[in-house]
Amino acid sequence: MKIVIINSGSSSIKYQLIEMPSKEIICSGMIDRIGLETSNLSYVTQTNKIEKTIPIENHKIGLKKIATLLMDETVGVIQSTDEITAVGHRVVHGGSSFSNTTIINNEVKEKIKQLFDLAPLHNPANYEGIVVAEEIFDKATQVAVFDTAFHQTMPIEAYKYAIPNYLLTDNKIRVYGFHGTSHKYVSEKAINFLEKSSKIITIHLGNGCSMTAIKDGKSIDTSLGFGPMNGLVMGTRSGDVDQSVIFHMVNALGYSLAEVNTMLQKQSGMLGLTGFSDLRDIEAEAENGNKECQLALLMNAYRIKKYIGSYVAALGGLDAIIFTAGVGENSSYIRSLVCKDMEFFGIELDSVKNAPRSKEIREINTPESKTKILVIPTNEEIEIANQVFELLSR
Amino acid sequence: MKIVIINSGSSSIKYQLIEMPSKEIICSGMIDRIGLETSNLSYVTQTNKIEKTIPIENHKIGLKKIATLLMDETVGVIQSTDEITAVGHRVVHGGSSFSNTTIINNEVKEKIKQLFDLAPLHNPANYEGIVVAEEIFDKATQVAVFDTAFHQTMPIEAYKYAIPNYLLTDNKIRVYGFHGTSHKYVSEKAINFLEKSSKIITIHLGNGCSMTAIKDGKSIDTSLGFGPMNGLVMGTRSGDVDQSVIFHMVNALGYSLAEVNTMLQKQSGMLGLTGFSDLRDIEAEAENGNKECQLALLMNAYRIKKYIGSYVAALGGLDAIIFTAGVGENSSYIRSLVCKDMEFFGIELDSVKNAPRSKEIREINTPESKTKILVIPTNEEIEIANQVFELLSR
Repeated sequence: MKIVIINSGSSSIKYQLIEMPSKEIICSGMIDRIGLETSNLSYVTQTNKIEKTIPIENHKIGLKKIATLLMDETVGVIQSTDEITAVGHRVVHGGSSFSNTTIINNEVKEKIKQLFDLAPLHNPANYEGIVVAEEIFDKATQVAVFDTAFHQTMPIEAYKYAIPNYLLTDNKIRVYGFHGTSHKYVSEKAINFLEKSSKIITIHLGNGCSMTAIKDGKSIDTSLGFGPMNGLVMGTRSGDVDQSVIFHMVNALGYSLAEVNTMLQKQSGMLGLTGFSDLRDIEAEAENGNKECQLALLMNAYRIKKYIGSYVAALGGLDAIIFTAGVGENSSYIRSLVCKDMEFFGIELDSVKNAPRSKEIREINTPESKTKILVIPTNEEIEIANQVFELLSR
Repeated sequence: MKIVIINSGSSSIKYQLIEMPSKEIICSGMIDRIGLETSNLSYVTQTNKIEKTIPIENHKIGLKKIATLLMDETVGVIQSTDEITAVGHRVVHGGSSFSNTTIINNEVKEKIKQLFDLAPLHNPANYEGIVVAEEIFDKATQVAVFDTAFHQTMPIEAYKYAIPNYLLTDNKIRVYGFHGTSHKYVSEKAINFLEKSSKIITIHLGNGCSMTAIKDGKSIDTSLGFGPMNGLVMGTRSGDVDQSVIFHMVNALGYSLAEVNTMLQKQSGMLGLTGFSDLRDIEAEAENGNKECQLALLMNAYRIKKYIGSYVAALGGLDAIIFTAGVGENSSYIRSLVCKDMEFFGIELDSVKNAPRSKEIREINTPESKTKILVIPTNEEIEIANQVFELLSR
C-alpha cells in the first residue's frame, strides 16, 4: 500500500511517499517559499535527487508539480496517481473533536475549519493541503492525523485552566498539547523496548519543545497548553512566563499586544537569551566561555528538570525518561545537564553511553539507575503512515 | 521595645503594637474603606475591644485616629507616641534593590517610589503609610520589611524568564516572588522543629497562594513570579495559565486586555471554577456532591502536587513540606488531597494527626514517612517585629 504523507504549512509542503507495511520511503521532499518569486523544491528518491528554484504560486501548483515528478518518465516512482491508496495529512489542531486518526469527509473538513481560530497559523494551511490533495490524488482515501489527538486522554484536572468555566464550555479554552504524533511514536517504542508500559516521561526537544507524562501508554499531562508557546524554553519561544509580564509590558512599558505576542513567539527562548537560534552554535559558544550561552543552556535544562519532577508527581512514580527530536536526540550536553543531580528520581546518566550519536534507540543510564534514560529517534511521517495503514487495514 | 507594625493597603490600614522581645501583642486592629462615607475601625487590646463605623477620609486621618486611641485615657496603652521605638512597614515590592529589612531614609523612600510600576496596587499604599507614620510617630525609626526580600537568594536560572535579555537588565522583568515574610517565618520554625535545615518546601495557602523551595534556609525558587497572579490556583486568581489564552481572548474573542486582566485576577481561581470564593463553602458543597467544587479542589491540589515535584527536582531531594496560612493551616481536606499518592516523594500523611485544628506547630505524617509533613501557623506581623527588633539590636 502506497501512502503519501503531507505536512502542509502556510508557505511550505513537506511530503513523503511510503510503502506500507514495509515502511520503505520511496520518495521524500519539500517545497518552501510558496507564493514568493523563488520557491525551493526538492525531490529525493533512492536513486535520484532533484533540487530546483522555481516560482510556485500556491499549494495547488506545488502539489501538482510533486505529482508530475512522482510520475515522471525518468525520475518518477509511480505510473499514475491511482496507485496512491491514501494520503495522510498532518493536522495540527483537532480540538476536542478528534481523539483519533480520522478518514476525511465533508463533516471532518468542516470541523477542521471550525478550529481555524484555535490554530490560525496551522489549520488553514493543513486544510488547504487536504483540498488540493483531494483533487490531485482523487482515488486516494484522505486521512487526517492530529497533533492534539494523543493528548485527548488527559484527565480534566490536567487540561482545565482555573479560569471561569464558560471559557472551557463555550470557548473551548483548555490544554490541548501538541507534538502528539511524536510523543505517541517514541513512547510506544519505549514500551516495546522496556517490555513494560507504565510511567514514562517523553521529552521532545526540536524547534518546538514539549514534555508529556504517559501512564500505561496514555498521555495524562503535557507541557504545551492551549497554544504552542508555553512550557519548555524553545528556540525562539519563551515557554512558561508569568502572565503579569504581558500586562506590564503593555500597560507600563507601552508595547502593543501584537508586539508582545511576536516577542514571546519569535524573539524569546534560546534566541532571546543568547542571540543565537541554533543550539549547536550556543553549545560551541558556551564551551568557549560565553556566559549568556552557558546560562541559557542551564535555564533550558532547569525547566526540563522541574517538569520531570512535576510529572513524577502526576504519574506517582517514574520508570523511564525519553529524549527525542533534533536536540533531544543529538545534544549529549543538554541531556547531561538535565540528568545532573536527579538521583532522587532514580536518574543516573552514564556519560560514556550518553556521548555518541546514533539513529538507533539506545539506553544511556548506568546499570544501577532505577529510572531508564532512553534516546529514541522520532519519526512523525512513519507514525502518520502507521496510523493511516492501521486505520485502512481494519 | 515597643514596635508598631503597619500594613497599609490602598484603602485600608492593618496595625499591631508589639512589645519586643517578648512578642506580646499589646494592641491590634484595622481600618478599612478609607475614603468612603463609612469606614470601619477596630481597636483591640487585652482588655478592650472597640469597633466603630465613621468616615475616614485618608490614611493620615486614619493613622491619627489610631494614635489617639493608643494614647486614650480609658482604652489607651501608651502615654505618648514617643514610647514607640520603631514602626515596621510591610512593603510588598522591594524589586532587586532590597534583599534585607531596611531602615527607611529618603533614598529608600525614593527607591520604593521607583518600584510603583512593578506593584501599582501595593507600593503606593505602602509608601503612603510610611509618609504618614513618619509624621505621627516622629521619634520612631521607620523600617521597611519587603515581601520580596526573602526570595532575593534565588539563583538566576530560577528568576530569569526566557525572554530577550534587555527586559531583565533594562526593565527589571524577572521572578520576584511574594509572601516572603511568611515563607521565611515558617521555614525558620520548621528548621528549629526539625533540628536540621536542608530541603524544605513551604506551601502558603491563604487569599494569595505560593510555594517556595528552600535549601539550607534560603529561597531557591518560588511560584509567584513577576506579579501576584501565577503559580497555584488561588481564591480569585488563576495561577499558571498558558499566555496564548490572553492573546486568543483579545484577538479572537474580542475581550479588552483590561477585561482579561480583571478576569485572571478577580474572576478566576476557585471563584471562577465554583462560583464560591470561601474555601469552607467549597468544601461543604463538595461534600454534598457538587461536582464543580469537587473538581476545583482536585485541580487546586493537583497544581500543588506538581509544584512539589518540580521543587524536589530543584532541591535535589526533600526533607519536609510545610502547610501554612488560612487554608494551609485549617483545611485538612486540601492537605489530604495534596499528600495523596505522593509516596514516591516519601510523603505519607497520618489521617488522624491531620484531622484536628490547632494553633501549634505540628507534625502530621506517619512515623514511617521519610518526608516530614508539618502544619505551622504563620504570623507575618511577628516576623516583621522580629526583623525590626533584630535590625535595631545589632
